[in-house]
Amino acid sequence: MSFAISGVNCAAATPLNADLTPDLGLFASHCQQLLAEGCHGIALLGTTGEANSFSLAQRRQILEAALAAGIGPDQLIPGTGVNAAPETVELTRHALANGVSRVVMLPPSYYKSVSDDGIFASYARIIESLGDDRLRVILYHIPQMSAVPLSHALIGRLIAAFPGIVVGIKDSSGDLANMQAIAAAFPGFAVLAGADPLLLPLLQSGGAGCITATSNLIADSLRTIYDHTSDATRTAPAQARISAWRTLSNSYVQIPTIKAMIGLKSGQAAWNRVLPPLVPLSEAQAAELAETFATLPGPVS
Amino acid sequence: MSFAISGVNCAAATPLNADLTPDLGLFASHCQQLLAEGCHGIALLGTTGEANSFSLAQRRQILEAALAAGIGPDQLIPGTGVNAAPETVELTRHALANGVSRVVMLPPSYYKSVSDDGIFASYARIIESLGDDRLRVILYHIPQMSAVPLSHALIGRLIAAFPGIVVGIKDSSGDLANMQAIAAAFPGFAVLAGADPLLLPLLQSGGAGCITATSNLIADSLRTIYDHTSDATRTAPAQARISAWRTLSNSYVQIPTIKAMIGLKSGQAAWNRVLPPLVPLSEAQAAELAETFATLPGPVS
Repeated sequence: MSFAISGVNCAAATPLNADLTPDLGLFASHCQQLLAEGCHGIALLGTTGEANSFSLAQRRQILEAALAAGIGPDQLIPGTGVNAAPETVELTRHALANGVSRVVMLPPSYYKSVSDDGIFASYARIIESLGDDRLRVILYHIPQMSAVPLSHALIGRLIAAFPGIVVGIKDSSGDLANMQAIAAAFPGFAVLAGADPLLLPLLQSGGAGCITATSNLIADSLRTIYDHTSDATRTAPAQARISAWRTLSNSYVQIPTIKAMIGLKSGQAAWNRVLPPLVPLSEAQAAELAETFATLPGPVS
Repeated sequence: MSFAISGVNCAAATPLNADLTPDLGLFASHCQQLLAEGCHGIALLGTTGEANSFSLAQRRQILEAALAAGIGPDQLIPGTGVNAAPETVELTRHALANGVSRVVMLPPSYYKSVSDDGIFASYARIIESLGDDRLRVILYHIPQMSAVPLSHALIGRLIAAFPGIVVGIKDSSGDLANMQAIAAAFPGFAVLAGADPLLLPLLQSGGAGCITATSNLIADSLRTIYDHTSDATRTAPAQARISAWRTLSNSYVQIPTIKAMIGLKSGQAAWNRVLPPLVPLSEAQAAELAETFATLPGPVS
């Protein structure tokens, strides 16, 4: 099965300067390291990347910084969906103008209890407004944040209306059965797990890969899962490691914890900064995290 | 009790051109009519105004159109809170540069389950970044849309940290007891009801006024409530009328219904347009709405 997007893609975290602007240099080197560690792609500017807390100008800068560092446009999958359709168009057009054709597109998420017709109209308006055959849209199902779930009926309508354009979905619901059902219903449509431990079972049931947060830390183990899916002697230790790292990252508020763990791994304290409304871990939490971090399993072969 | 904001303020709906850009001329004349019908102020660019579906550039145009039509800056209370703090700063600075000092500020609402510390840090960063003593911030509590409720402890911290700047709250929760408790806890802090039928009981228990959707249609009756709060012979028929109109506006999805009702009142079909992810009423709904609309009570003295 050939998918328009597959493999291990990192929901890259975004380091910050002291004034809370993005640290572009550190971000670019983080992306380079992620690729060196085994990521197929960098899904920058998503939920973990705190994209919604950056201005449009900052979002463009962050993508441009990765490109300027020599990362290929085909390795970058930026989030471009914001609440205002004209701005989603603007960000997506900017990506396309830079040779980046694959984007993760969050639906508008301010209004709640909206209908499938309304979400369909939102995506259709944006895709038609762009009118660019190079575009590849990965839908974004993350009901715990957006509170705007994407139904299977809606997904089917979008694939039918925009064949070759609407090519996949990032499913961050944590609901494996939902991901498997989408993969079964729409052959060739790329289903990407948003939770690291689900990469293996999803690959075993028709999924395409993942876009995850823990790959900021242990991309090598996720790559082992992807490359050796049916070899339990390889996947078992990788899966155990992923589970241990993921459990720790979810022991506190996830995004500040992932960033603090990148800080512990890299020795760069800049990673401890987060944008409001997120807050850094407390000193007590950070100390406890560091203690457990030191006990986490290292790389497996 | 003197409040920095009080009275009847309309959560103005925004009419659209066929290409879904804002119809600036029709919007400005709608605002003028609202003031003529009794509104003290126009709370444009809120939830009812579909602000989150417009680009920053469109939001600035909409405010400028009202000003250009001769509406006083002291009669305009735009919503300026978006997810990205640098953009909330940009929109608020634009308002201040145009002499508009009072803004309704939604907290960032993409991330859920955020702490009071995080919401406080968001508002503090924005207010400190603006550094403008003219600024008057009305907080926005609308948990059914934002999913980011504002606690009383947080409100108290913001008032204490920014006295004379954080001056009020629009409470769209529909929970009168919550509004009354805020008014009791923070004397001089303006509590504004987001639901029309609650204006009367809130005024009777220390509230300052309202910012509501039905005032797009029957501002005169809300003004009667405000001007004659303790005269039941005046308030009873006004309250009955408000209740009837509000009940109809909530019989279908509220914002498309409010807009369709403005269309029925004004004869301008442009009001039937809404921005995705909202959708217009179906033909059957529109026909049913028109039938009931014709039976609604007219102005009361």
